[in-house]
Amino acid sequence: MAELVGNVLVGQSGGPTSVINASVAGIVAEALNHPCIEEIYGGLNGVLGILQEELIDLASESQQQIRALRHTPGAALGTCRYKLKKQQDFERILDVFKAHNIRYFFYIGVPKTIDNDLSVTDHCPGYGSVIKYLATSVREAACDNEAMGQGDLVSIIEAMGRSAGWIAAGAALAKRRDHPYDPPHIILLPEIPFNQEKILEDIRRVLKREKYCLIVVAEGLVDADGNYLAADAATDAFGHAKLGGAGDALGEIVEANIPGVKVRVARPGLLQRAAAHSAAKTDSDEAFLAGQAAVRAAIAGETDKMITLVRGDTEHYTCETGLAPLTEIANGVKKLPREWINEDNVSMNFQFLRYAQPLIQGEITLPYDTGVPVYARLDKAQVDKVLPPYEL
Amino acid sequence: MAELVGNVLVGQSGGPTSVINASVAGIVAEALNHPCIEEIYGGLNGVLGILQEELIDLASESQQQIRALRHTPGAALGTCRYKLKKQQDFERILDVFKAHNIRYFFYIGVPKTIDNDLSVTDHCPGYGSVIKYLATSVREAACDNEAMGQGDLVSIIEAMGRSAGWIAAGAALAKRRDHPYDPPHIILLPEIPFNQEKILEDIRRVLKREKYCLIVVAEGLVDADGNYLAADAATDAFGHAKLGGAGDALGEIVEANIPGVKVRVARPGLLQRAAAHSAAKTDSDEAFLAGQAAVRAAIAGETDKMITLVRGDTEHYTCETGLAPLTEIANGVKKLPREWINEDNVSMNFQFLRYAQPLIQGEITLPYDTGVPVYARLDKAQVDKVLPPYEL
Repeated sequence: MAELVGNVLVGQSGGPTSVINASVAGIVAEALNHPCIEEIYGGLNGVLGILQEELIDLASESQQQIRALRHTPGAALGTCRYKLKKQQDFERILDVFKAHNIRYFFYIGVPKTIDNDLSVTDHCPGYGSVIKYLATSVREAACDNEAMGQGDLVSIIEAMGRSAGWIAAGAALAKRRDHPYDPPHIILLPEIPFNQEKILEDIRRVLKREKYCLIVVAEGLVDADGNYLAADAATDAFGHAKLGGAGDALGEIVEANIPGVKVRVARPGLLQRAAAHSAAKTDSDEAFLAGQAAVRAAIAGETDKMITLVRGDTEHYTCETGLAPLTEIANGVKKLPREWINEDNVSMNFQFLRYAQPLIQGEITLPYDTGVPVYARLDKAQVDKVLPPYEL
Repeated sequence: MAELVGNVLVGQSGGPTSVINASVAGIVAEALNHPCIEEIYGGLNGVLGILQEELIDLASESQQQIRALRHTPGAALGTCRYKLKKQQDFERILDVFKAHNIRYFFYIGVPKTIDNDLSVTDHCPGYGSVIKYLATSVREAACDNEAMGQGDLVSIIEAMGRSAGWIAAGAALAKRRDHPYDPPHIILLPEIPFNQEKILEDIRRVLKREKYCLIVVAEGLVDADGNYLAADAATDAFGHAKLGGAGDALGEIVEANIPGVKVRVARPGLLQRAAAHSAAKTDSDEAFLAGQAAVRAAIAGETDKMITLVRGDTEHYTCETGLAPLTEIANGVKKLPREWINEDNVSMNFQFLRYAQPLIQGEITLPYDTGVPVYARLDKAQVDKVLPPYEL
């Protein structure tokens, strides 16, 4: 099949990660290699901006800024949670594509999610960095807790994770090999309904053995009836419940039931997914590769596919990119395998560790200026609009 | 005066910082240089352990572990918030000193505090690292917020700081020079009583100009009557109110008063003071120097003094150690100067920036193993007890 000659459009969608911009950098870097690609445009704020014909010229950005995207958190093009619904929306998108000769469209909502819950792909870009940050924070909090505790300190760190425990589970990487008593002492996953009496017993047992009990709790922890431990009545645009507060809720339960105990709750919130200063090099590199692979696949005529990460079948970790039909991905969810959780329900076994450990390897050396990391700032030169305005 | 010949005892007290262990490393390193020092002991859990004659042999720790202390957060010897009260307590301490021929005693509660509120010293070891972490987090959260906001996002980061705004103020270092509109857009300090209507107006103004409004709020924020914005009835051993929740309280106020706005609150809590992976090299080096200087001063016969940090009177930042009488330090508090806060009450001026910027310079390259930082783990070889047990 002959290569399509024309322009590229890239957009970003959904929640940012530490490495979603690395995929944009991969797309731009690869696109420059292909003569069939003329202009490289970015759509501002995902489909929201594309509907409004808000395009920027990515090819006119400096090499320096595109390179800086490889270590910049957030979503440099802006993102949205807008859901295309109306028939007119779809037609408008095609009109924008036609008006700007867009032959290749990459929408980076897929594959990237700190939640790591996409099917088919071995793991998702963004996941490795968030659990590296969390495992590092657990190790550091443990140094602090160890100094402060006298068998009376319960330290709670709330991890992101609405419906799956992938992120909270990743905190297990803070343990040294063959040191099962290392913190985190207790991991509370949405997959395991909260059993108050059992968990209080677990905490008391840890406090008998250690100076402190460090707990990592997923924000989406639910009770036996499926109710969130701490839910807010509000819901977001997709009808998902807005969460937050599982750590505080657990803290209150502990204080009310274990006399004399001190409770400390940390809720890093979105600092977790933005902590590029603690990103995993493996993760960032794979996100970049995914962007490059997407361009090559599109030019080869592939469409309606997602780039997947495929783990090599070798002892030493290797990872290549693959392709899977979007229809296969769209509504599937990859659950944290039950058999990767120990029988105690609050710790992860070697199968999980073998899976997750390679994903957090390597550190990134950031550029610093006057003591703080320097992140990319795009010029965002606007592409001239040629269509009439569009009513959302 | 002839040098005293005998043993050193070092203990740690109060809340840990990222660099309090660097001071222990400085003491051990310097003590090894002086033949008048025979044994180097550590007291476990501050005066609590010393009262109970719980001493460990620091000289028998490996060089590797002592070196690792320079980048290890927490307080490796353990700490306490125990207040010596009874006459017997003081006598017991002296008995322990006599029994183990302790001629030099260093208690690292002073100088170190992330709160930066000690008088006489220019700044306190630990402060530079906590504000470097906070400024980095603000810059990263800003990347995330910028992507997600549509003029409707209020992002709140709660900073430590019970009674002074030194830490929250440090978030101002996230701004680039000559970019007053950079985040953090609003800093709420305990020094400025919370004025709800004025702050809501400030937030509305920022949201008209920017896609999001990033606020850093000190945990100790108070209203015009001096009441904490969010106080917990409980108090700690010193009678201080236990805080936490100023961010959530502010978030609720914003949601209730600005329709359609989304609020996100991050409360990194003690992760701030434990984030050695984001420590400032300047801070860590100064903490080490303070430890060394303490040993030299003690051998020279100085007593009842604190090591201070003295800023050079030059254009380029320099810092030397000095000495000040403990009596002068003990009950003084260094307030954040009112004239370093801009007239808008929610941002810091160049005088603050000139003060704080040198303190966060430099990064530390940590050793990593399987993707997470490796911190010191002391052997803690116990020194034989020779005294009868002591009732606390």
